[in-house]
Amino acid sequence: PAEPKDNDTNSNLCSGPVILLSHGDPTGFKPFWRSVGDKCKVTIDSCDFMSYLTDVGTVCWFLEKELEEAIRQLHSTVGNAVTDDRHIVVGTGSTQLYHAALYALTSPGGPEPVNVVSAVPYYSSYPEETNFLCSALYKWAGDAYTFDKEGPYIELVTMPNNPDGQVRGPVVNRNDGKLIHDLAYYWPQYTPITAQADYDIMLFTFSKSMGHAGSRIGWAVVKDKNVAIKMTKYIELNSIGVSRESQHRAAKILGAVSDSSQCIGANFFQYGKSLMAERWTKFREVINRSRLFSLPKYMEEYCQFSGEDSEPHPAFAWLKCNNDIEDLEIFLRRYKIMGRGGSLFGSDPKHVRVSMLGDEETFNLFLERVSSIQDTISNSNGNGI
Amino acid sequence: PAEPKDNDTNSNLCSGPVILLSHGDPTGFKPFWRSVGDKCKVTIDSCDFMSYLTDVGTVCWFLEKELEEAIRQLHSTVGNAVTDDRHIVVGTGSTQLYHAALYALTSPGGPEPVNVVSAVPYYSSYPEETNFLCSALYKWAGDAYTFDKEGPYIELVTMPNNPDGQVRGPVVNRNDGKLIHDLAYYWPQYTPITAQADYDIMLFTFSKSMGHAGSRIGWAVVKDKNVAIKMTKYIELNSIGVSRESQHRAAKILGAVSDSSQCIGANFFQYGKSLMAERWTKFREVINRSRLFSLPKYMEEYCQFSGEDSEPHPAFAWLKCNNDIEDLEIFLRRYKIMGRGGSLFGSDPKHVRVSMLGDEETFNLFLERVSSIQDTISNSNGNGI
Repeated sequence: PAEPKDNDTNSNLCSGPVILLSHGDPTGFKPFWRSVGDKCKVTIDSCDFMSYLTDVGTVCWFLEKELEEAIRQLHSTVGNAVTDDRHIVVGTGSTQLYHAALYALTSPGGPEPVNVVSAVPYYSSYPEETNFLCSALYKWAGDAYTFDKEGPYIELVTMPNNPDGQVRGPVVNRNDGKLIHDLAYYWPQYTPITAQADYDIMLFTFSKSMGHAGSRIGWAVVKDKNVAIKMTKYIELNSIGVSRESQHRAAKILGAVSDSSQCIGANFFQYGKSLMAERWTKFREVINRSRLFSLPKYMEEYCQFSGEDSEPHPAFAWLKCNNDIEDLEIFLRRYKIMGRGGSLFGSDPKHVRVSMLGDEETFNLFLERVSSIQDTISNSNGNGI
Repeated sequence: PAEPKDNDTNSNLCSGPVILLSHGDPTGFKPFWRSVGDKCKVTIDSCDFMSYLTDVGTVCWFLEKELEEAIRQLHSTVGNAVTDDRHIVVGTGSTQLYHAALYALTSPGGPEPVNVVSAVPYYSSYPEETNFLCSALYKWAGDAYTFDKEGPYIELVTMPNNPDGQVRGPVVNRNDGKLIHDLAYYWPQYTPITAQADYDIMLFTFSKSMGHAGSRIGWAVVKDKNVAIKMTKYIELNSIGVSRESQHRAAKILGAVSDSSQCIGANFFQYGKSLMAERWTKFREVINRSRLFSLPKYMEEYCQFSGEDSEPHPAFAWLKCNNDIEDLEIFLRRYKIMGRGGSLFGSDPKHVRVSMLGDEETFNLFLERVSSIQDTISNSNGNGI
């Protein structure tokens, strides 16, 4: 009863455009960056950035000095991570740094690949990214909660979590484990900054922090020098460095956000937080009109950056259907809403992850269509369940 | 007798700066790019290139349309590769595309990793790049000339060859082989363009073609659509795309070089060829003054781009010592000349690869020091042998 048929009277629901929410493309922040005008414009001359090398002698030999400084300054301003006495490794997005970290934390010649785990629901790309080259160094071993194999392991801790926005710590907690903390979303627009993160390997990305996904800039904050050296080696062997143009631009933008004298910093995080809060409020309003769907609840916490209590407003909504729909991704696809189904996150198919970061038009269309679905389902069986 | 000692009267040879020629950093082309002024300057606004996506619907979904067009136009102008009815895949340098090609040409579940071979002397990074993740999909199997294992294999054909500048074809030539052609140096400044290359997978790079190594832009010209799709998938899983800023800049520069109306094109390759020819002439003059070292000889051929006969002027010199020096890399290192030793290329240690692409000052210092070494050795044993 809950699924539209080709000759359904409600099939006008499907006449609109496809609503693509399966990826976390952060174009929702674009109006802000359009508004800053020339303040973060960069100009690159024909003869700039010709060498592979930036500053030979540092651990990460292809890292632009200005980017390193901007990264340290930004973390200091926001208070979300310790960078003193830590090494910075730049990558082609944090994805390349994830591969670099796996390489750095393992060694050839072991009896078996090191097991890589993450607590369900985990980031849907981890399994394929970990396994696609069939490495003998490491292999995906699934949910950290049910992990019971002996021997060394690597646990990925995504904090706050993608897809469900929860704040979590490691769950295996054995002595022979190594941790990679993916802190892509530990920024004030998404979640209260409750403490300076201080973990062995912390991954961040320009995509989710500022919204500049096309630049493919990520960075790792690394405690152990040898790990930083090995991560750098991975990037050397994988791509001989990272775009210097993108590093230069990221340095300019991160620098401007740190530099309160230009007022971009306070404004950007304020803009981002308002945008996310507004979207979450609107989305919850729509969802609460029926019992068809539900969303996670989050606790208010004190944010040290903004100096006020606030609720998380995650980059993704982890939407759940409460009725007899078995596979929410397939269900929504019939209404031309493309989300990412729960089973890809090691969870159940009654969940779908939808991006909250897209452009305003797409987001509003999404709200309208969800609302229409709720009306349709309510009308067809009386109470939406 | 051929090696300086700490208290050697010739140790003043070692008082100069270290001459770093072990990498092919193409900074020698910088004066040209400085001279073009604003013609290839790019300006990037705060809100440009924010999305992961460029043109959804093409095979390589993160490729900038303007870059694709510039690449096709440049190959058409130079006449060095067929691109009609071929797919273009962009990468973070051609190194990332090499990994992508290995992934695309293999499949999980085979009884053994596919053997990867290349004829000696081969590019020194191939073995480590192929093996460092201990993939079950492929493994380095060394010299193609001596390869005798059964089953599927991949042969890397570098043309013209790095390190020795020779033009070569595949050498195994069996039906169960797949080929990757690395054409990084198949440009008019290095070698006569004798035909439009037309191979299954051809790798090119912005670093060696134009001298912009810091941008980390490479591209593959691929015949088979499924191979292009799989290479794109590799880059998605490895780094979710390629810097859009760098792609934009590369499009501008490649476009300007194709566009003869601006005269940058004819000028760039003319500049590059003159520079390389002049360096090779000078270097051969120095080398020919004694019998201590020798260099490969190359044949003149007709270059279809320039319309005249010319000799190759490779990006690297494959220097050989003719006397009783066992390890030329170690020998030169004592005179603070850092080259890359022959054994890394699967060859003998009497060879060293030295870059011919560095800046003018370094190159001239190198000539002086080689000259001094020749004088020293000649004086110590009479005839340089």
